[in-house]
Amino acid sequence: MSEDELLALIARHLPASTATVPTGDDCAVLAPKGEVAISTDILVENVHFRRDWSSGADIGWRCVMQNVADAAAMRARPMSFFVAMTIPENVTADWVEDFSWGLREACDHLYSLSGPIAIDGGDLSRGPIIVAAGTVVGDMEGREPVLRSGARPGHKIVHTGNLGASARGYELIQAGKTGKAVRLFLRPEPPVNRAIGVGATAMMDVSDGLVRDCRRIAKASGVALELDSALVTAAASPDVTLEQALYGGEDHGFLATVDGPVPDGWNEIGRVVEGTGVLVDGKQVDAMGGWDHFG
Amino acid sequence: MSEDELLALIARHLPASTATVPTGDDCAVLAPKGEVAISTDILVENVHFRRDWSSGADIGWRCVMQNVADAAAMRARPMSFFVAMTIPENVTADWVEDFSWGLREACDHLYSLSGPIAIDGGDLSRGPIIVAAGTVVGDMEGREPVLRSGARPGHKIVHTGNLGASARGYELIQAGKTGKAVRLFLRPEPPVNRAIGVGATAMMDVSDGLVRDCRRIAKASGVALELDSALVTAAASPDVTLEQALYGGEDHGFLATVDGPVPDGWNEIGRVVEGTGVLVDGKQVDAMGGWDHFG
Repeated sequence: MSEDELLALIARHLPASTATVPTGDDCAVLAPKGEVAISTDILVENVHFRRDWSSGADIGWRCVMQNVADAAAMRARPMSFFVAMTIPENVTADWVEDFSWGLREACDHLYSLSGPIAIDGGDLSRGPIIVAAGTVVGDMEGREPVLRSGARPGHKIVHTGNLGASARGYELIQAGKTGKAVRLFLRPEPPVNRAIGVGATAMMDVSDGLVRDCRRIAKASGVALELDSALVTAAASPDVTLEQALYGGEDHGFLATVDGPVPDGWNEIGRVVEGTGVLVDGKQVDAMGGWDHFG
Repeated sequence: MSEDELLALIARHLPASTATVPTGDDCAVLAPKGEVAISTDILVENVHFRRDWSSGADIGWRCVMQNVADAAAMRARPMSFFVAMTIPENVTADWVEDFSWGLREACDHLYSLSGPIAIDGGDLSRGPIIVAAGTVVGDMEGREPVLRSGARPGHKIVHTGNLGASARGYELIQAGKTGKAVRLFLRPEPPVNRAIGVGATAMMDVSDGLVRDCRRIAKASGVALELDSALVTAAASPDVTLEQALYGGEDHGFLATVDGPVPDGWNEIGRVVEGTGVLVDGKQVDAMGGWDHFG
């Protein structure tokens, strides 16, 4: 197949775009209402996924979702998505079409949460493994971005999403089992609507594990984040251990701090205190935990 | 090295950003003056480059330049750049730092042509080869985008850039020779200022070869593009053959059609006529020519 034929295969299932200039020219041209939030994130075969566990559609879904979570964590509404890929020769046209179907399913799911998002561009190349680099464009629509640096002592730490479900799903799929957690491991569901609508003092999406990402907010804000293990366990997905809730990553739920009551749909999991680093039940957690491809 | 240490190494040389929220949070937040033009483009080791020919800095430069050419081809001013990479274990920290130096040199070069551009985000992962997926954000600043579909019979075909230099450089480097064309093969120099400023009816950057890209404008516009071989030869870089000028790619010069006089800094190379496809000296060119990774 030529690159143009592969692109046509991918384009077949994609949602309609609201772009001023949609995909097909040198660039897409977009008309956001406010400032734009942009992030890029890469999925690599045998690092982030295995082709015997994840279908093409699963990879397409994850590629969109892990990126849009970054936009929502700024309170930007995900409006547009771009994907650059390498595809090895042993990948079939069916796999590529299935991948594009996963992009479509992710866009449809997001439509129900935060409104229209389209795939407005991409690039394809040969390569020895599947790599999918996604870039999301979010529209701030006049909202102020929520940074990682706004946490202050006395603020509540809150979370929304499927905390620990991905780690639990990973445990199950390794054991050859199935279930809702396996589905969430393969297809994370960040509740982007709750992030966009929240009045938070600091926020990020949990991609590398709760403790590791709490440490990032603590560092950026010059404070310590103290988690309460009973609250973390209560906030976690069904059958998730405390270890999985604290150190598992890739759920793409949202971690925030708030100065006031716990927002609807969020769970309180601790509080911001003076100091540095992350504490669990008052004790400093030294281990980084979480996931570092280069560690 | 950890991912954070590698990111610090890359960040060391990057230019200052004018973003509302610079890199380091979940997203960068940008404040463009007008609509935004966005495109993504991928560079793959052993497909687009060889590590024994291109230095890290050469790859960083190319990653920026091949993307910003797409923005300029819409008449958008390149304002921000994002890069997602895979890096194999056999790549040294020196190579990574050199890559980031190439990003910096490209931004400095662009500053002199079209103003400030910053690297506002990225992602790193392990992988078996080097892959660098770049995404450019361009600011339309109130200008209307120039599409591929606006060419009409009677318009002049014009070009600006180093036509055929990359193909000539490829020939030289294969023969173990050096020279200006080799430098342009390794580090293309799209004249983005001339594209942003032009009053064109259709435009694109020449990435896959003149004939192949003329065919794209012809198809999008519903016309035929007739090239004049004497004009093409006159417009080409020094020592470039007609074959290299017609079919060589990766120069990232600009191909446009204009309804009026030839703009300053551009060369006339043919004219738009009724019909379909691409003609050279009145004869249809059937071969696609140019570069298709999947062909």
